[in-house]
Amino acid sequence: MSKCKFWALKSGFNGQAKLSDFKLVEEKLPTSLKDGELVCQAIYLSVDPYMRLFTHLSKAGEPVAGEQIAKVINSKNAKYPVGTIIRLSCGWRSHTHVKDASTIDLMPELGDLPLSLTLGIMGMPGMTAYFTLLDVLKIQKGETLVVSGAAGAVGSLVGQIGKILGCTVIGFAGTDAKIKWLKELGFDHAFNYRTEDIGKSIEKVAPDGVHCYCDMVGGEISFKVMQHLREYGRMVVLGTISTYNKSGDVTGPYLFEDILKKSLTITGFIIFNIREKWHIGEKQMAEWIRQGKLKYKETITEGFEHMPEAFLGLFEGKNTGKAVVKA
Amino acid sequence: MSKCKFWALKSGFNGQAKLSDFKLVEEKLPTSLKDGELVCQAIYLSVDPYMRLFTHLSKAGEPVAGEQIAKVINSKNAKYPVGTIIRLSCGWRSHTHVKDASTIDLMPELGDLPLSLTLGIMGMPGMTAYFTLLDVLKIQKGETLVVSGAAGAVGSLVGQIGKILGCTVIGFAGTDAKIKWLKELGFDHAFNYRTEDIGKSIEKVAPDGVHCYCDMVGGEISFKVMQHLREYGRMVVLGTISTYNKSGDVTGPYLFEDILKKSLTITGFIIFNIREKWHIGEKQMAEWIRQGKLKYKETITEGFEHMPEAFLGLFEGKNTGKAVVKA
Repeated sequence: MSKCKFWALKSGFNGQAKLSDFKLVEEKLPTSLKDGELVCQAIYLSVDPYMRLFTHLSKAGEPVAGEQIAKVINSKNAKYPVGTIIRLSCGWRSHTHVKDASTIDLMPELGDLPLSLTLGIMGMPGMTAYFTLLDVLKIQKGETLVVSGAAGAVGSLVGQIGKILGCTVIGFAGTDAKIKWLKELGFDHAFNYRTEDIGKSIEKVAPDGVHCYCDMVGGEISFKVMQHLREYGRMVVLGTISTYNKSGDVTGPYLFEDILKKSLTITGFIIFNIREKWHIGEKQMAEWIRQGKLKYKETITEGFEHMPEAFLGLFEGKNTGKAVVKA
Repeated sequence: MSKCKFWALKSGFNGQAKLSDFKLVEEKLPTSLKDGELVCQAIYLSVDPYMRLFTHLSKAGEPVAGEQIAKVINSKNAKYPVGTIIRLSCGWRSHTHVKDASTIDLMPELGDLPLSLTLGIMGMPGMTAYFTLLDVLKIQKGETLVVSGAAGAVGSLVGQIGKILGCTVIGFAGTDAKIKWLKELGFDHAFNYRTEDIGKSIEKVAPDGVHCYCDMVGGEISFKVMQHLREYGRMVVLGTISTYNKSGDVTGPYLFEDILKKSLTITGFIIFNIREKWHIGEKQMAEWIRQGKLKYKETITEGFEHMPEAFLGLFEGKNTGKAVVKA
């Protein structure tokens, strides 16, 4: 193997993300390694909505930012001999020449759980769900929680962890099949926001309002949910997927009066900022999976060459659970 | 004295608050009191911007909500004999028949400080400033703080306490005289938002952005300040005076992407919700005043009959410091 491939953005996104925004680039791999270096080959690659928002992470012509699980295929690093499975944020690459092994992420202890979970329930989305509820919202037993994008990688876990913690969980998603799945997962209430009135749905099942809102989608849904936050309500912004593909200035209702009148707290949260704490959440998630308390779905796309399609599918409501590409 | 007066709203506010929204109502005072009851006469009455926002507190035909300092003039309550000075939230009343003495607020120990301060620096505005910085923002020495409405009752104290706590303080106000006063108070930087570019002003003095924003005004100023919040920036919404008098739906820029990208936290805070903690802040404020670390201004309107004018002045940028009416 002397050549590898990566996906780059031609020049960045402009409005609606599309296939033609991406190009496949060939690159040479080194023939010899220096001490401490290694080469790894992607096994699973993650596609996530945040890649559309955090465009500063993906410079034109360079690999689109993202995490992957890879196997070491050449190594001059005793800690990572050939055959080691590693997780790293090296972008959309088929192979990676790792010059600085300190950039390799700590892998969770998987036991007999599938490897791909380290990009999902045991990775970024799982940790986002876990730490949002435990650290950011500090959600309490008996509280009512609304989740938007509830059938997605993060949302489906937020709802389930909410149930484990003794909350009443209300989910919004965009197809009847997703709603059915959310009910199977144990959500107390789940509504199709495309066919049901968001405000009336909440009023019906939570007439006293809701304590917490985990927002994956932003836009219209969120403004409506916010109107049903109780006094001291807490909202976490984890994504605003409904607006990622819009160009130009987006406007919305004026929120400050509501924030003041109801003493609301709104917080943005990026899980990569507390990377050092992931091991705590990963251990708990593994335990809950083994106890049968957490279920998950993956939408796996086969083939590194289909990464852009897998990514674009995120914005079309196509996938349920975590979207992963098998290289 | 057998009759008293109170100011009521005729039917509520509609858009711009105006004199004709108010009416002066006469009411009878009781000729005899039951055990535990008392009658008091207003000495100082508070007018505050929140009275425009929290319109649900002021039902049409009933006294406009608000605090006052009053003297007991008739009493069947041993705890409050005739002559006692009390603070209570009885609304815009010249005299009040207090049936339940438990509604009387604890008075701070004033010593030789002026009585009117119990509605200002030692009252609601002072406590708002104190607990916003200490409890809500938990501001740290060395952080940079922006204050809007900086020459108002709350803003002028937020800035000064910020300085006591070792922060860099940037204030925005609407006249050059106010800016001059803010600099006398020790604000590191003060800008007239009517004549200077808000964004450029912040960039010039805080090129790395600001850690905290105490927002008294909302609207355009706030959207611009928010753009200069650093990662993990904290914003407290204490007022949105710029929009109180607007009718219909107000819209603004879409905030969620910024909140997410910079992991911001926005919190609404109402000081009346932590009434039980005021004594802590009042003690500290009195100490800082005596040490010469806190200065204050009052805009005192003479005459109970001028309460509506004093109140409307708040929205015209007329007053500096705390607006109080002397009955």
